[in-house]
Amino acid sequence: MYDYPEPLQNLIEAMRRLPGVGPKTAQRLAFFLLSRSREEVEDTARALVEAKTKIHTCSHCGNFTDKDPCSICSDERRDRSLLCVVQESRDIFTFERVGDYRGLYHVLNGALSPLEGIGPEELKIDELLERLQDEKVKELIIATNPNTEGDATAVYLSRLVKPLKIKVTRIGFGLPVGGDLEYTDELTLSRALESRREL
Amino acid sequence: MYDYPEPLQNLIEAMRRLPGVGPKTAQRLAFFLLSRSREEVEDTARALVEAKTKIHTCSHCGNFTDKDPCSICSDERRDRSLLCVVQESRDIFTFERVGDYRGLYHVLNGALSPLEGIGPEELKIDELLERLQDEKVKELIIATNPNTEGDATAVYLSRLVKPLKIKVTRIGFGLPVGGDLEYTDELTLSRALESRREL
Repeated sequence: MYDYPEPLQNLIEAMRRLPGVGPKTAQRLAFFLLSRSREEVEDTARALVEAKTKIHTCSHCGNFTDKDPCSICSDERRDRSLLCVVQESRDIFTFERVGDYRGLYHVLNGALSPLEGIGPEELKIDELLERLQDEKVKELIIATNPNTEGDATAVYLSRLVKPLKIKVTRIGFGLPVGGDLEYTDELTLSRALESRREL
Repeated sequence: MYDYPEPLQNLIEAMRRLPGVGPKTAQRLAFFLLSRSREEVEDTARALVEAKTKIHTCSHCGNFTDKDPCSICSDERRDRSLLCVVQESRDIFTFERVGDYRGLYHVLNGALSPLEGIGPEELKIDELLERLQDEKVKELIIATNPNTEGDATAVYLSRLVKPLKIKVTRIGFGLPVGGDLEYTDELTLSRALESRREL
């Protein structure tokens, strides 16, 4: 059996560790990178290290940022009475791409999952409660993922927060816009019925 | 519109330049890398730069190698009377994974493609002819890709090499093993018929 030269093997293994990359894709990526100029490959390597060095999480909300507090937390035009809870930092970018939301965020760093051993202590829930007490939040919007863990987390948070006399809402569930009723799964349809509104 | 912090944006753009990576995947890869430890990210960056620095092409056959000549060209147990022509260095690894072939290789660096402006001068054809004259090659196996460019290159090479009294062969075409006749395309089936053998 003929092996790849070691530096090439190492590169393939590094690619293999990326999510969704199997052995074939790892090979393809490695050969692609070898076909690039040395400058381009060095640029890619630099982008990796610089992102990891310069990007950290906002001490306030948990957003990925190169400043602290992040540009959302420090934006005076943001509505500080609204706080949106998300599981991951990347969810903030999804919300911001839509652009409709003008409040602040709080990143939980996951969702409750007894199966994976993730309890309330593993999440940024104490920090959330502190913020709710310190800041003048009027509404807490829970935007955890629409699955078992996300729902359980939403229920847990709402029980915790309601005694503080803060309005707690969950983002809406239902048919995705542009979707087709025929291809909608039963759970989504049942949620869509539940969250029907009068026209 | 809220933008990614610059180092994160740069990382997403670097991922975006990989083959088969769209904007969504680039984001996913970037966030994944941010979630890794600094050490792991630095390892990945190092693997990139080291592969590009240490891997070059064998001056003899064009294989990717960290030595020169490569470990195939310098392997005394290899059958030097057989030379297999491939388009890319990575094709050698595909052959070597199979392990049946014990001859040497020659990488063309592509295939003839008038549409893309790739003529014989762009390929390592002069180097091939030199090797055929210098080394005692008895059979040249043409293993360019089974498509228009690969076939045209095979025909071109065979015309060039036949006057040298060297046997020229093309790897076989037909049904892929484990495939299903029903799902075989017409061209492959026609090729399979053409290359039928008596049982």
